[in-house]
Amino acid sequence: MQKRSYKRKLKAGLAPGTLVFTGEKKMASVDFSVMYAGDDYYREERPADVDSVMQLLSGSLTSGIEEMSWYNIDGLHDEEKVAEICHRLGLHKLTIEDILNVGQRPKLEEHDTYLHIVLRMCMTHPTGRFIEEEQLSFIMQGNVLVTFQEKTGDVFQNVRTRLQEGKGMIRKRGVGYLLYALMDAVVDHYFIVLEALGERLEDLEIELLDNPDKESLGRLHHLRREIIGLRRSVYPLREVISQFAKIEEPRVDTSTQVFIRDLYDHTVQVIETIEVFRDMATSLLDLYMNSVSNKMNEIMKVLTIIATIFIPLTFVAGIYGMNFDHMPELSWRYGYVSVMAFMFVAAMLMLVYFKRKKWL
Amino acid sequence: MQKRSYKRKLKAGLAPGTLVFTGEKKMASVDFSVMYAGDDYYREERPADVDSVMQLLSGSLTSGIEEMSWYNIDGLHDEEKVAEICHRLGLHKLTIEDILNVGQRPKLEEHDTYLHIVLRMCMTHPTGRFIEEEQLSFIMQGNVLVTFQEKTGDVFQNVRTRLQEGKGMIRKRGVGYLLYALMDAVVDHYFIVLEALGERLEDLEIELLDNPDKESLGRLHHLRREIIGLRRSVYPLREVISQFAKIEEPRVDTSTQVFIRDLYDHTVQVIETIEVFRDMATSLLDLYMNSVSNKMNEIMKVLTIIATIFIPLTFVAGIYGMNFDHMPELSWRYGYVSVMAFMFVAAMLMLVYFKRKKWL
Amino acid sequence: MQKRSYKRKLKAGLAPGTLVFTGEKKMASVDFSVMYAGDDYYREERPADVDSVMQLLSGSLTSGIEEMSWYNIDGLHDEEKVAEICHRLGLHKLTIEDILNVGQRPKLEEHDTYLHIVLRMCMTHPTGRFIEEEQLSFIMQGNVLVTFQEKTGDVFQNVRTRLQEGKGMIRKRGVGYLLYALMDAVVDHYFIVLEALGERLEDLEIELLDNPDKESLGRLHHLRREIIGLRRSVYPLREVISQFAKIEEPRVDTSTQVFIRDLYDHTVQVIETIEVFRDMATSLLDLYMNSVSNKMNEIMKVLTIIATIFIPLTFVAGIYGMNFDHMPELSWRYGYVSVMAFMFVAAMLMLVYFKRKKWL
Amino acid sequence: MQKRSYKRKLKAGLAPGTLVFTGEKKMASVDFSVMYAGDDYYREERPADVDSVMQLLSGSLTSGIEEMSWYNIDGLHDEEKVAEICHRLGLHKLTIEDILNVGQRPKLEEHDTYLHIVLRMCMTHPTGRFIEEEQLSFIMQGNVLVTFQEKTGDVFQNVRTRLQEGKGMIRKRGVGYLLYALMDAVVDHYFIVLEALGERLEDLEIELLDNPDKESLGRLHHLRREIIGLRRSVYPLREVISQFAKIEEPRVDTSTQVFIRDLYDHTVQVIETIEVFRDMATSLLDLYMNSVSNKMNEIMKVLTIIATIFIPLTFVAGIYGMNFDHMPELSWRYGYVSVMAFMFVAAMLMLVYFKRKKWL
Amino acid sequence: MQKRSYKRKLKAGLAPGTLVFTGEKKMASVDFSVMYAGDDYYREERPADVDSVMQLLSGSLTSGIEEMSWYNIDGLHDEEKVAEICHRLGLHKLTIEDILNVGQRPKLEEHDTYLHIVLRMCMTHPTGRFIEEEQLSFIMQGNVLVTFQEKTGDVFQNVRTRLQEGKGMIRKRGVGYLLYALMDAVVDHYFIVLEALGERLEDLEIELLDNPDKESLGRLHHLRREIIGLRRSVYPLREVISQFAKIEEPRVDTSTQVFIRDLYDHTVQVIETIEVFRDMATSLLDLYMNSVSNKMNEIMKVLTIIATIFIPLTFVAGIYGMNFDHMPELSWRYGYVSVMAFMFVAAMLMLVYFKRKKWL
Repeated sequence: MQKRSYKRKLKAGLAPGTLVFTGEKKMASVDFSVMYAGDDYYREERPADVDSVMQLLSGSLTSGIEEMSWYNIDGLHDEEKVAEICHRLGLHKLTIEDILNVGQRPKLEEHDTYLHIVLRMCMTHPTGRFIEEEQLSFIMQGNVLVTFQEKTGDVFQNVRTRLQEGKGMIRKRGVGYLLYALMDAVVDHYFIVLEALGERLEDLEIELLDNPDKESLGRLHHLRREIIGLRRSVYPLREVISQFAKIEEPRVDTSTQVFIRDLYDHTVQVIETIEVFRDMATSLLDLYMNSVSNKMNEIMKVLTIIATIFIPLTFVAGIYGMNFDHMPELSWRYGYVSVMAFMFVAAMLMLVYFKRKKWL
Repeated sequence: MQKRSYKRKLKAGLAPGTLVFTGEKKMASVDFSVMYAGDDYYREERPADVDSVMQLLSGSLTSGIEEMSWYNIDGLHDEEKVAEICHRLGLHKLTIEDILNVGQRPKLEEHDTYLHIVLRMCMTHPTGRFIEEEQLSFIMQGNVLVTFQEKTGDVFQNVRTRLQEGKGMIRKRGVGYLLYALMDAVVDHYFIVLEALGERLEDLEIELLDNPDKESLGRLHHLRREIIGLRRSVYPLREVISQFAKIEEPRVDTSTQVFIRDLYDHTVQVIETIEVFRDMATSLLDLYMNSVSNKMNEIMKVLTIIATIFIPLTFVAGIYGMNFDHMPELSWRYGYVSVMAFMFVAAMLMLVYFKRKKWL
Repeated sequence: MQKRSYKRKLKAGLAPGTLVFTGEKKMASVDFSVMYAGDDYYREERPADVDSVMQLLSGSLTSGIEEMSWYNIDGLHDEEKVAEICHRLGLHKLTIEDILNVGQRPKLEEHDTYLHIVLRMCMTHPTGRFIEEEQLSFIMQGNVLVTFQEKTGDVFQNVRTRLQEGKGMIRKRGVGYLLYALMDAVVDHYFIVLEALGERLEDLEIELLDNPDKESLGRLHHLRREIIGLRRSVYPLREVISQFAKIEEPRVDTSTQVFIRDLYDHTVQVIETIEVFRDMATSLLDLYMNSVSNKMNEIMKVLTIIATIFIPLTFVAGIYGMNFDHMPELSWRYGYVSVMAFMFVAAMLMLVYFKRKKWL
Repeated sequence: MQKRSYKRKLKAGLAPGTLVFTGEKKMASVDFSVMYAGDDYYREERPADVDSVMQLLSGSLTSGIEEMSWYNIDGLHDEEKVAEICHRLGLHKLTIEDILNVGQRPKLEEHDTYLHIVLRMCMTHPTGRFIEEEQLSFIMQGNVLVTFQEKTGDVFQNVRTRLQEGKGMIRKRGVGYLLYALMDAVVDHYFIVLEALGERLEDLEIELLDNPDKESLGRLHHLRREIIGLRRSVYPLREVISQFAKIEEPRVDTSTQVFIRDLYDHTVQVIETIEVFRDMATSLLDLYMNSVSNKMNEIMKVLTIIATIFIPLTFVAGIYGMNFDHMPELSWRYGYVSVMAFMFVAAMLMLVYFKRKKWL
Repeated sequence: MQKRSYKRKLKAGLAPGTLVFTGEKKMASVDFSVMYAGDDYYREERPADVDSVMQLLSGSLTSGIEEMSWYNIDGLHDEEKVAEICHRLGLHKLTIEDILNVGQRPKLEEHDTYLHIVLRMCMTHPTGRFIEEEQLSFIMQGNVLVTFQEKTGDVFQNVRTRLQEGKGMIRKRGVGYLLYALMDAVVDHYFIVLEALGERLEDLEIELLDNPDKESLGRLHHLRREIIGLRRSVYPLREVISQFAKIEEPRVDTSTQVFIRDLYDHTVQVIETIEVFRDMATSLLDLYMNSVSNKMNEIMKVLTIIATIFIPLTFVAGIYGMNFDHMPELSWRYGYVSVMAFMFVAAMLMLVYFKRKKWL
């Protein structure tokens, strides 16, 4: 939660469109990569600095050739460089603000000259302990697709490979299909995260049934918070993809829209899985509470059995420990043996009683 | 949950339409059966291999005769065979992906040349302990209906028998009615599953009221998860059947639509029953918690009664066990008897007190 | 729940419209009664067998006279007789199935020649312990109204009396108003059931506040289940009556529609009352849990007070019961008295402490 | 709940429109008052019997003068008198039934010649312990406004005073504005009830945090029930006022509609406050449960500390109370002192342990 | 809650539009400030009394120059002064009532000559312990914007600075953009409040996991109430800003509407964050309950272990403390040592048992 609203304080009341990167710096420098693809070729460049990018970009935007180009910018902490590229693309200053202000809800905005999509990507942290979120921004303008990531990730690697190897129709279908393919990669990535989450839920379930302790409660609490957070990121996604499916944009043709509707189905599946996880987490909490109650019950039973058997017996022993001068039983020949036998019988009777009550 | 998202990981980022079967292999080989029916005849064939199927299928698709034919494919693990048949039917590659990718939500898709319906079938596992799910895909193209099942099941047996015996109107009404009849068989099957579930709920209720233990908690938790899962499968079904009732398709005529609306009513009944079961499961959890509380209470009462009676008495006995030189009571003639009598009276008074408090 | 899905198992996969009565046989034979009414007369017949009914029915359906006739069939277990009548009325086979299959949700279906309404009637069982449900089917065709009941009940008795005595406008307004009057009687009957339910809730509330035990928990659980079941029967009723109010049917004229809207208001009132009861039942469960907690608390307090006072005192007594040779206190003149006084003071101090803690 | 459905039983199956007052008789006789107002005058009459009212009413209804008149009838238990007035106004018999049948939901009905509004008024009972409800019916016909109350209340007093003193525009704006002013008084009255309810909630909160006992649970339960009941009365009110704002009626002009929209805002505020109270009551229940848990915890701690310290010490004392012939320690010179010292140290160590566990 | 409905009681039944300030007096006197801005200049005045304001206002309203002016009134307790200004602006008396009656829900009302917006501003109280709310009213009439605040705050300071320094487009875009900028400042301020709330939630979470006590329960309860209250203030805000985005008003041009849509996104983000906080608070309560249960469990374990070990041993000691004449063991040479050894072994066995049960 904190991360999202961070730096807002500094910005409150400032003019909207003031450009401040609101995330954490996640990599040393800003990385650029440019990919060109046509029906039968593929070319990749890695410009070293922002000036080279600007030059290439100018070429792509003004050339009349129908060549699809994809600019990928990894790292947003260098606000000036990012802003420079954005200005070259002619983006509205609120769009630039959204790109840099990395706590946005997923959304799709159609502007006069470009299409702006914000998504949130989730990754399980390498430790497997928590889920990281990252904001992805897509700008589609003519044949140019520009993607902004907070840090270099491997979620787009498969798409890049498909472009390189020319498998499927990815080179032929144009930039609209490329945009779809990248969004599909993001949504597919949710399934990986959900799978990991599902495994954690199941591990926790076994743990809770077996031996619930304070730590498992903490873990369950943590898991619930992650599911709440994930839900918040995914819910608006459905809306975004639904809008994307209905968009009127020459680069997104009918054959691509079939794929987008399929993507929409996947998103609904993601949302439903999250809802099921939420239900399961609540269910686990109930399980935990009941396991704890059960354990307490078991402890109480042991205490009660021990106390109930020995307290009365101790009382009897106490009686014959009294120092009265006139206690005839004390001098009886079989007094001691009788008392011991009586105690034994009393203990046995109580055990039978507990057996009947099903406490044993 | 796991099963559904399984193999997604391998697919994440691959081109959509890549054909990978995502379920578990549930039978040794793929089984084919082809049924032909007209107003007054019925013919059944069991092609041994996919080539024979292809030949028969080509005949059915191109022949001008108004003969209804139903191809049933059991087993989807042999991706190539399934894909071959699908390609012959001219299915979109996303449709083929949906057929093989057996974690789909129920849905209905109208394509230019065919109608595609995905349903989920539920069965109580023979042990009666859990519910199995299976994906069913229906393709209706002209007079040909193709059904894909993960494994041979008996849910369609009744429909087959009706076709064989020519009972009712099933031979006369054409392929749209056949499709309805199969879907009706699937929905009817839900009632059987719900009945079994209802019986398990009632058994659990009696168990919980009688003698709640750790195991019953596990069983209840398991049941809740099953209901959550079932709910997820059935909810989209309503939408599917509602769409089916409104479809504009020459093979689904008005007289059949009356039956589909009836099927819709049944689906709503299934959903409501699941909702009632969900409420009941929550209600049972409350019952469990309260039963456990009650049991704990009972244990505490026994402990308290025993402790409250004997601890003070033991104290009294302790006093007269002290070794002071000057304890006049010790040498009294009736000291011992008086103390015993006093203790007896005290114990009786406490029992009366408990009686009044309704602890006994 | 069980009752509703009963016999479904036998039916799964059978042709729709196969006629099987799915309820329990609630009376020995099928009873028929036929009532004719016009502006200024009323006639009642009780045909002994189904053939006489068929004859009368044929007369009513074909005669050109504007005479309102009401056929009431009590008992549905003789499927053939019921089916025969239904066929004579020209009902669709799904309609006949709905009449016999007594687990339907309330619904209204307009067919070409007739109107079909299904309602569920609730009665408190004579023992006052649970609520019985029964399905009522209404067929209105021309001037003929046919009602099907599972068993002879007295819910229609008032309407019959009004017809006999010619009070109000019931004879004059025609068959649409008669249908309304019968539905109104059913909805009015819900108020009686709700009143009984409300009384049981209030009795339970007093019981729970006074002395909650295991039995009251069982009763509360039972009540909650009944409310859930009732809710399921009544919810679709609102929709049915709303449809009925908007129906375009010459026999239901504008002046009758005013009454139907009034009936709709009553139905909404029934639903809201059920919702309030549901809230109250949940509220009662909370009350129960808290009462149990309170009781446990009280028990714990008694235990703690007794144990806390006497355990330390017993320890002190134990010390002076030790057999050491050198224990100077033992031979002191006022040793015994001092120890007794010390114990008394300690006990008093502890009582003061508990008083302050408000445990006493 | 009971009161609302009361007498329904007697009515079930009777002809609709049968006139039975379903409330309790709350005042000795029926009171009438008639107020006439114009731009610059105000006149009030108190007819002694129903005949005088009828005479005045006939005058008001037939006179052509644009004089606003308001008839207020307090007390509905004399069904005949009320019905007589209603018949003179030409009300539909279902309207009359609604006026007498005092368990109606708030509603607005437009009839051909009159407007019928039902509201529910809430008052805190003078003891401040519970909330009373009363049904108010308004009939507006031409320039005549008739109001029916179950008993004389002071909610309309302010409006009457404004009419008398001619303050504001109430005399000039006509009968539509008068109707608005009365409804506004009713809604304003809800704020008073809510304020009292809010105070009771806050008192309860302090009580629960300080010293929760069985009685506070009963009070909280009672409060929750009242909030549930209030909510049921107020929810339909929003709909009524929304309909009133959109009504097409010459007497309710545009300038009045601005006020009605303002009234609508107030109603929404009432509903939201009730929702907040509901949340707060649930929140208080959680608070109660947790307070009880905390208290139990505290009790358990005291018990555990006492038992844990003294039980082992008592055991040690018990050992040296044994009567073995050969117990060398008993004859040691400093045996007694050493044992006492050992016990003291053991007790101290345990105290330190508890301190660390934060039990002290 | 109380504050909101306060003084309503005095007003119930009074004519609507009666002007009474319903808040608390939060500052000594009423403060006025007037700001004029154009493309290239900015002027600020601080009129000492209401007369000067009236004079300036008359100038602004009647002058034909396209000069943007912003009147800010801090402090509403002097009802007459505020009313005088409002009357000069020609406001409807319900509008004036809304300005003074500071418990309004956020709303936007379009009147013939002016636009009226009510917002609620939230501030964390300097102590950081609770959230204060304040009502802000905006009146936009021609080129004049009037803002009413309950007390001088610094939320508008940033906007004022931007006006002074002429940064961005704030001077050029006119009064519609100024209104947007002020509303944006209010919404941005919510993020600060939410951040503080989030920090309190996180602190509480750590506290609850570590050492839950009675105080943390009180704090959590308090926090939940604040979130409920905040939610009530923010929910209608979305509606207001959505209306504002669609408003047809010459001063709010298309380029400004882009910014308002951005503001709308922020509001949705605020609402979602509040929902997440609500979920988290509920989650924390569960955590608390479970932590308390865990703690109780731990206490019970210690008690049970101590009691279970020492009660039986004390019993054994009690036996050999009995004074029977014939107890052969007492005179055995190694009797004492054997008994001690037996006790030691018994204690060890019990410890092993507890270890296995995972109680240690």
